[in-house]
Amino acid sequence: MTAVSTNPDVVKPLIPVLAVVGVGLIGGSFAAALKASASVGRVLGVGREPATLEKARLLGLIDQTATLDEALGQADIIMLATPVGAMGPIFERMAPSLQAKTVVTDAGSTKADVADAARAILGSKSKQFVPGHPIAGAEQTGPDAAFPDLYRNRNVVLTPTDDTAPDALALVSRAWQACGARVLTMDPQTHDTVLASVSHVPHFLSAVYMWQVAMADDSDLRMSLAGTGFRDFTRIAAGSSEVWRDIFMANRDAVLTELDEVKQALQHAEKALRDGDEVALQKFLERAALARRFWGSRSGLT
Amino acid sequence: MTAVSTNPDVVKPLIPVLAVVGVGLIGGSFAAALKASASVGRVLGVGREPATLEKARLLGLIDQTATLDEALGQADIIMLATPVGAMGPIFERMAPSLQAKTVVTDAGSTKADVADAARAILGSKSKQFVPGHPIAGAEQTGPDAAFPDLYRNRNVVLTPTDDTAPDALALVSRAWQACGARVLTMDPQTHDTVLASVSHVPHFLSAVYMWQVAMADDSDLRMSLAGTGFRDFTRIAAGSSEVWRDIFMANRDAVLTELDEVKQALQHAEKALRDGDEVALQKFLERAALARRFWGSRSGLT
Repeated sequence: MTAVSTNPDVVKPLIPVLAVVGVGLIGGSFAAALKASASVGRVLGVGREPATLEKARLLGLIDQTATLDEALGQADIIMLATPVGAMGPIFERMAPSLQAKTVVTDAGSTKADVADAARAILGSKSKQFVPGHPIAGAEQTGPDAAFPDLYRNRNVVLTPTDDTAPDALALVSRAWQACGARVLTMDPQTHDTVLASVSHVPHFLSAVYMWQVAMADDSDLRMSLAGTGFRDFTRIAAGSSEVWRDIFMANRDAVLTELDEVKQALQHAEKALRDGDEVALQKFLERAALARRFWGSRSGLT
Repeated sequence: MTAVSTNPDVVKPLIPVLAVVGVGLIGGSFAAALKASASVGRVLGVGREPATLEKARLLGLIDQTATLDEALGQADIIMLATPVGAMGPIFERMAPSLQAKTVVTDAGSTKADVADAARAILGSKSKQFVPGHPIAGAEQTGPDAAFPDLYRNRNVVLTPTDDTAPDALALVSRAWQACGARVLTMDPQTHDTVLASVSHVPHFLSAVYMWQVAMADDSDLRMSLAGTGFRDFTRIAAGSSEVWRDIFMANRDAVLTELDEVKQALQHAEKALRDGDEVALQKFLERAALARRFWGSRSGLT
């Protein structure tokens, strides 16, 4: 499945032909990073919006636009960088004509649902599918926001199942490493549980809080006095409602379970405050502060 | 109470002598801003830690160190920039020797408790006290972090009571305007209710969430996959546990009331997710996203 040249004088790139379905921040940056590292020959862009694809082409993220069928006929790797809700329908359209030599991967934020859909729809061809999730993003979206260093020193989680072909996993790993990413592998369910905790629940809570402030009778006064703490705490609430609706629906059980844990922690902290127990209150705040400072010093995310 | 020169050829600055009690980020930046705008003659620094005061002096934030009694004998304005829990004891020490010409103000994050303490302890001299709260901060603390532009284009809320002398209020307003700040006035209770919503509750929730992740059995794995959303959402949780314990205790009722509102909003959003009601879920997420984007475009906080 890795590229082998028929002419011994010409070294083929890691991925002779890459197709990216959904050329926004995530897909566009994947293409840009592979181009920057000379790991790709030609990049096909597939998507619903001709204007977006044309912009991606003018930005040099893709070399040409293509239909999904054209991509299926030519690509060595097909990267699905669409909202997770769109993956099932794309698998349906791919299933009949997916060739044995083609590796498919994705960049969706949830993995068990995508892996399950691939198995159910692609059948034995699901061995060619490598579920993946780059832990990287930015406030901006769309091809304009894409840049080749988005994944540099960031974690990319691959979640192979028992079905996944080892050489497909190896090729996708090498592609992400060529983007400068650190590749981790774990099973889809562990990924989803962990991501529910460190990504989906913060987004949910940030949106809940923002909604509550926006719905208050005196929301204008409140927002006029909001400062940098409010800014940081609510930044993620500005994200795409369509993308996040799909993520929450796809990882519903893990998110609800984790929210229950947070509500228990909230009850514990509220009790200390209600009781005026300053020692317990400070102990709780200090534990949180130390954990956050420790993470900050190690995460490399400034 | 405003400065009048005894020599008509010399124009005195707005504040001939300023004393700052607690020369950290907040107090140090106040002094630095007034120096930068040539609004102050001499700055005295008062505090518990000699090393901190000496650093503030070497940084040029203050001209000399002083005891509280020395400050009471010389200062035209005394700025209390300590944690809110320290205000009561400081009023106790000031009460006997506070001169009629001296204006006292503070920079505490809660106002009803400070205004009440001033009235209870200072008695009729509480007319010389102007409760205030600059809505500005930074991740770093201490005199090293202080800089003259911290308050530029930021809101400063002054919360005069029925007792507050108009000329004291006017002088403190002019001082903050000289720092480049926008001055708003409101009653202490309104301030505390609004700040509970836009500052204290986000901090509480961020700390609760951070605590919950830190206490999980697999917290190392979780934190290894935490990205930029986690970073932003938890940044405030790293703040001083002592400072925030005091804020939560001082504004306990408003914080608990507001937390109840957030929990109701959480219930509403969780129900949409649990029911798989994609329309309701997206509507909620979209309302939050629009409110955050609108605030972001108007707040001037990037």
